[in-house]
Amino acid sequence: MIIIMENSATDEQIRQVYERLIDQGFDIHRSTGSTHTVLGVVGKTDLVDIRDYEIHDGVHEVIRISEPYKLASRTFHPTDTIIKVGKAEIGSNTIVLMAGPCAIESREQIRRISKELKGTSTSILRGGAYKPRTSPYSFQGLGEDGLKFMREAADENGLKVVSEVMDRMDIIPALKYVDIIQVGARNMQNFALLKELGKVDKPILLKRGMSATLKELLMSAEYIMAGGNHNVILCERGIRTFETYTRNTFDISAIPVLKELTHLPVIADPSHGIGIRNKVAPLARASVAAGADGLIIEVHYDPDHAASDGAQTLFMEQYDKLVKELKIIATAVDRTI
Amino acid sequence: MIIIMENSATDEQIRQVYERLIDQGFDIHRSTGSTHTVLGVVGKTDLVDIRDYEIHDGVHEVIRISEPYKLASRTFHPTDTIIKVGKAEIGSNTIVLMAGPCAIESREQIRRISKELKGTSTSILRGGAYKPRTSPYSFQGLGEDGLKFMREAADENGLKVVSEVMDRMDIIPALKYVDIIQVGARNMQNFALLKELGKVDKPILLKRGMSATLKELLMSAEYIMAGGNHNVILCERGIRTFETYTRNTFDISAIPVLKELTHLPVIADPSHGIGIRNKVAPLARASVAAGADGLIIEVHYDPDHAASDGAQTLFMEQYDKLVKELKIIATAVDRTI
Amino acid sequence: MIIIMENSATDEQIRQVYERLIDQGFDIHRSTGSTHTVLGVVGKTDLVDIRDYEIHDGVHEVIRISEPYKLASRTFHPTDTIIKVGKAEIGSNTIVLMAGPCAIESREQIRRISKELKGTSTSILRGGAYKPRTSPYSFQGLGEDGLKFMREAADENGLKVVSEVMDRMDIIPALKYVDIIQVGARNMQNFALLKELGKVDKPILLKRGMSATLKELLMSAEYIMAGGNHNVILCERGIRTFETYTRNTFDISAIPVLKELTHLPVIADPSHGIGIRNKVAPLARASVAAGADGLIIEVHYDPDHAASDGAQTLFMEQYDKLVKELKIIATAVDRTI
Amino acid sequence: MIIIMENSATDEQIRQVYERLIDQGFDIHRSTGSTHTVLGVVGKTDLVDIRDYEIHDGVHEVIRISEPYKLASRTFHPTDTIIKVGKAEIGSNTIVLMAGPCAIESREQIRRISKELKGTSTSILRGGAYKPRTSPYSFQGLGEDGLKFMREAADENGLKVVSEVMDRMDIIPALKYVDIIQVGARNMQNFALLKELGKVDKPILLKRGMSATLKELLMSAEYIMAGGNHNVILCERGIRTFETYTRNTFDISAIPVLKELTHLPVIADPSHGIGIRNKVAPLARASVAAGADGLIIEVHYDPDHAASDGAQTLFMEQYDKLVKELKIIATAVDRTI
Repeated sequence: MIIIMENSATDEQIRQVYERLIDQGFDIHRSTGSTHTVLGVVGKTDLVDIRDYEIHDGVHEVIRISEPYKLASRTFHPTDTIIKVGKAEIGSNTIVLMAGPCAIESREQIRRISKELKGTSTSILRGGAYKPRTSPYSFQGLGEDGLKFMREAADENGLKVVSEVMDRMDIIPALKYVDIIQVGARNMQNFALLKELGKVDKPILLKRGMSATLKELLMSAEYIMAGGNHNVILCERGIRTFETYTRNTFDISAIPVLKELTHLPVIADPSHGIGIRNKVAPLARASVAAGADGLIIEVHYDPDHAASDGAQTLFMEQYDKLVKELKIIATAVDRTI
Repeated sequence: MIIIMENSATDEQIRQVYERLIDQGFDIHRSTGSTHTVLGVVGKTDLVDIRDYEIHDGVHEVIRISEPYKLASRTFHPTDTIIKVGKAEIGSNTIVLMAGPCAIESREQIRRISKELKGTSTSILRGGAYKPRTSPYSFQGLGEDGLKFMREAADENGLKVVSEVMDRMDIIPALKYVDIIQVGARNMQNFALLKELGKVDKPILLKRGMSATLKELLMSAEYIMAGGNHNVILCERGIRTFETYTRNTFDISAIPVLKELTHLPVIADPSHGIGIRNKVAPLARASVAAGADGLIIEVHYDPDHAASDGAQTLFMEQYDKLVKELKIIATAVDRTI
Repeated sequence: MIIIMENSATDEQIRQVYERLIDQGFDIHRSTGSTHTVLGVVGKTDLVDIRDYEIHDGVHEVIRISEPYKLASRTFHPTDTIIKVGKAEIGSNTIVLMAGPCAIESREQIRRISKELKGTSTSILRGGAYKPRTSPYSFQGLGEDGLKFMREAADENGLKVVSEVMDRMDIIPALKYVDIIQVGARNMQNFALLKELGKVDKPILLKRGMSATLKELLMSAEYIMAGGNHNVILCERGIRTFETYTRNTFDISAIPVLKELTHLPVIADPSHGIGIRNKVAPLARASVAAGADGLIIEVHYDPDHAASDGAQTLFMEQYDKLVKELKIIATAVDRTI
Repeated sequence: MIIIMENSATDEQIRQVYERLIDQGFDIHRSTGSTHTVLGVVGKTDLVDIRDYEIHDGVHEVIRISEPYKLASRTFHPTDTIIKVGKAEIGSNTIVLMAGPCAIESREQIRRISKELKGTSTSILRGGAYKPRTSPYSFQGLGEDGLKFMREAADENGLKVVSEVMDRMDIIPALKYVDIIQVGARNMQNFALLKELGKVDKPILLKRGMSATLKELLMSAEYIMAGGNHNVILCERGIRTFETYTRNTFDISAIPVLKELTHLPVIADPSHGIGIRNKVAPLARASVAAGADGLIIEVHYDPDHAASDGAQTLFMEQYDKLVKELKIIATAVDRTI
C-alpha cells in the first residue's frame, strides 16, 4: 500500500498517519520527494479499507498495490489452470462446449436434448433444476427430480453435467448428480454460498454478476478458493448498461482481460449475454475469436415451447451450424474444438 | 398484454400468433387499425416471457400492460402501508431514524453507541452481526453473539433493532433477537432467502441491489409478500454507474418514484449511498427533502477505529447536528421527526 | 506522477522506464522499498498519457498525483468564486433561481412567463432559442428572433437572461442578447465551442454531459478558463444509467463532491434531471438540501401546450409552492433564497 | 402511436386525451377491450413527445410504434447500402480495413506509415488532424497541414483517406483532402455539425457516442441523411460502464443489432473500444466474427513515441499478424478481406 501525502501536508498530519499505521502493525518506508511525501506501507495491507486513510487530513491518495485476490491471481500462479471433467479439459487448448436447455422440464425433454447433442462436439450438458426467477409466480424448476433426469440423460450419451445451485441447502442434492456446480449471476456475492462451495470437491462455474467488476468476480472466485476448492471456471454473461435493445451488454473485453489477470479458465455465455436467439451465434463466434476457453449455450429441440428463456434458445440445427463456424474460428487462434 | 403486429404482417403470421395465444389459454381482442393490427391479450399474462412473442415473424412489439408485481403495487393498495415497530411508525407522517455502527464489535461498543443515541430522536438501532464482505479475509462479524449484545443494548435504551441476514440459515437466530430483518443489496435477488422471509412474522428492510431497477426491487418485495409477509420496507442505497469519485451513485429519484409505484415505506441509506463521511449529511438532508419515510445511518463514537466502513460512519456530534437540520427540512415537506 | 514497479521487475525494466522518463525531460526520485521500487516523477506530467508507462514491462501501476485541471481546482483557489449577474450573486450564500420555458415559442409567450416570474425570487430567465433535438424533424427553435424576444421580456421585468448556444457560430448573436451563455450536456466536450467561449466576456453555464465523470466536467470548465474566461457555473442535470423509469439518474452526490473539488458555483437542473413534472419539486428540494448554489427550472403558464419538454415543465402555481418550500430548506443549510 | 388507458380510466379522462389528439390533428382508432381501452393514433406521430400523453390522468402507457428514424431504417430500405470509396466497397461482402496513426505528426510519419500499410489489405488510411483532447493543454493536431500530408501519403500508396472534423468550420478544409469525413464520439450529437454534413458529397463515418443508445446513433445518422447525404458508415467504439479495467466497454452486440435495424454499413473501432494495445487484436477478431463490415485500427511504426494514444496503437508486425487471423475468421462468416 502506498500513501501519497498532499503537497501541503504538515508534519503533524504525516505524524498522525504514521501513528495509525504503526497501530495497525505496519512497517513504513518514507520517501520525501521534492513535491510529495510518499509512504510505502509494508505488511498485511490487503484487509485495510483504504478509505480509512484517504479521509485523514493531508492525505492525497492511497493506492493498494497488491491485488486483494491471491489464489486467483496469475502473478502467483503463472500457468493456466486446466480443469478436467470427464474427457473435457477446460482451460486447455481445446475449447469446451456446454449446451442444453435453460430448464429441465421433464425426463423425456432432457433425454431428447442430450441425445441430439451427440456428435456436436459438446461434452457438457447444461440444464437448470433450481431456477432463479425474477417473479415468485414463475416456474421455479423441478428441483432434485430434475437433477436425476439430467444425470441419467447425460450418462446415456457420454456427457457430463453442469447445473446451478441457488442456496447453501441445494448443494447436497447437487453433489449427488452434478459434475460442475454453477453459481448464477445473482448469487455471485452470496458469500455464505461461496464459502460452502469452497469445501466441495467439484469444479464451480462462477458467473459474473450483472454489475460486478472483473475484480469483484475474481474476489468471489477467491472466496471459493480460500476454502480449498481451486477448480473455479469464470463465466462472462453480460453486464447491465443503459442500452435497452439487448437484455444485457456482453462484455467481450472481459475475456482477454481475465485471461491476463488470472490462471483460471474463462468461458462465455452468449445466450444470456444478449437474450435474443438470432444474435446468439454472432456472440458465440466473437467469444471464441476473443480467446474464450469454452461456451455455455442454451439449445432445445422446440425452443418456442421451452419452459423458460425460449427466446434466447437455439434450435438444434442452428447450434450445429454454429459449431461448424466455431471450428474455423478456433483455427485462427490456434485452438481446436 | 398487447401485441402490435408489423405494418407488413401477413395473415398467416397473425394466425400463428393467435394459435400460440390460444394454446396458452388466452382470450384475444383483435383490433385492425389503418396501419397496424393490434391484439389485446386477456388472461394471466404476468408470467409470459414477452420475448417469446417478440421473436415471432410479423410481430412489431409486445407490451405488458399490468405490472408483474401486484401485492406491492399502489394500484391495488392505494393507501400507504405503515409498519409499527415499537413506537416507530414507518411510512407515517413521522420520519423514522435508524442509526448505529456498521458492525457490532463488542458488548461494550454497541452498549455505548446505543446509549449515546438516546435523545437523538432515533428509534431503531442498526448494526451488523453477519457481514457480507467482498474479501474472504475480512472481518465477518460476531454472528449470534453480536445479535445478543445488540438486543441487550437496545433494550437498555428503549430502542428497537434492525440487522442483516445473509442466508436462509441466519433467519433462526435473527428471529430471536431482531425486530426488523434486513436483506442486503447483494442478496436482493437471493430468491431462496426471500421466499423464506415471506413466512416470517417480522418486518423486512429490503435494500435495492447495486444494479437493480426499481421494478426488480418491487419484484423482490413481491417475493416476500407472496409468502404472506406484507411488512416490507424498501431502501435506496446507491447504484453502480461510471462515476468513480463516489462509491455508488445515490439515486435520489428513486424516492419519489417508489412512493408513487408502491404503498410500501421507502427509506434511504446515505452512508452506503456515498461512502464518504463528510458527504453523508448532504445526502441525508436531500433524502428527507425528496420525501423519504426514514433514514438508516452509520454512527460510531470512534469511527476511525471502527471494524468496518469507518470512512462512511458519522461521529455522534455530526449525527446530532444532522438531526437538527433534518427537523427543519421535515417541516418543508409537512412532516415531523 | 508516481510509477510503481512490479515486485518482480528487473533492473533492465526499471532502466527502460528511466530512459523514457529522461527522454521526456522529467526528474526522477527513486525509492527502493522492501517489496516495490517506486519512481516519483517530477516535471510537467499533466499531459502524459499514463497508459504509455503502464504498458511498459515491469510496471505495476502509474498514478497521476496532480489533477489535470488547475484553474478549476479548489487546491489553487480555495475561496468560492462568486459570479455576479445583475443583482444575483451565483456561488454566494444566496441561492439563485433561474426559471422559464424550455423553448422560446413567441414574443407573447416569453413576455407572459417573464411577467409571471415577478415576485417569485427568480432572478434569471431561462429559455432556448437554439434547441438541440434528437430528431432532425423536431422544432429547432426560433434562433436569433427568440433571443430578441427573451431580452425584451427580461428587461421589462428586471430579469437577466441565460440561453444555450450549440455551435461556435451561435456565439455572436448570443453575445448581443444573453447574460449567461449555456453549454448543453451534448456539447460538454465540443472542444471547438469551449475554446471559443474562453474568449468571451460573459459567464458560461456548463452542463454535465450525460455520461461525463465529474473530472471530465471540470476538464471542460478548464478548457473555457484556459482561454481567459473564469466565470464558469457548473450544472448537474442527470446522468445515464440502466434505470429506465426516469429519463436520467440525477446524481445528487455531484453537488457536495463538486463543491469540494472546485471553487466554481454548482447549480442543479431538476427538470432534465428527472423529466417528469410531478417529481421535479422533490429533486429541486433535495438539491438545495444537498448544497446547490442555484436551480434552473422549466416553467410555463401552459406546459401541456409547450413546444418542447412540456412533460417536465412546472405550472406557475407549482413553482410558487416549490419556492416557498425551498426557502424553508435553505434555512436548514444556513442560506437564503 | 398507441395509448393504453388505465383499467380505472374514466370516460372524462378518455375524452380529454381524445381532445388533445384531435387538437394535434390525429385520427384515432378506439378499441375497448375487456380490461383496457386502447387508442390507436394515426398521423405524423414521430414528433410527439410521448411523455406529453403519459402525464395525462388515466393514461397507463404510450407506445411509439414507428421508429423515429426513417431513412436509416431497414424497414424502408431492406437492401444493404454499399458505399464505394476507391476500390473499397464498405458494406459489401468484402470486409474493409482502415488503419493508420491516431494523429498525423509530420509529413514523414504519415508517409512512412502509409507505405508500410501497402500489401496489408488495407484500403483506407486513418489519421487525425483536428484532435478532440480532454485537456486544453494536450497536443491538438496539425490542422490543415496534417490533412495535406495525409492526402499526399495516401495518394503515393493507392490509399483513400478518413479523418475527423470537430466543428462545422473544419468541413471546408476536410472537403479538399479527405475521402471519408469522420464524426467523433463526443460530437455524435453535435446537431449543428450533423446538419452541415448532410449537405456534403462525401461519406460520413459516424462514431457512437460514449453513452449513446443504438437508437440515438441511428437518429444522428438520420440527421445527416435528412440533409441529403445518405452515405453514412456507423462505428461502434465502446460505451461507458462501471468497469474500470478497460477504458470503455466494447459493445459487441451492437454489430448484429445494428445490421438488423439499418441498411447502413457497420464497422468497429477496437483500438478505442478497449484502449490497451495487447487486447486490440482479440477485439478486432471478435468484431469480424460478429459480422462487422470493416475495422478502423490505430497502427504506428513506433507507437511508444506516438503523439497520442500510443498505448492502444499496434506495431506494424502486430497488425500484419492480426490481418492474417482476420482472413481466416472472415471465411467462417462467408466473407473475404
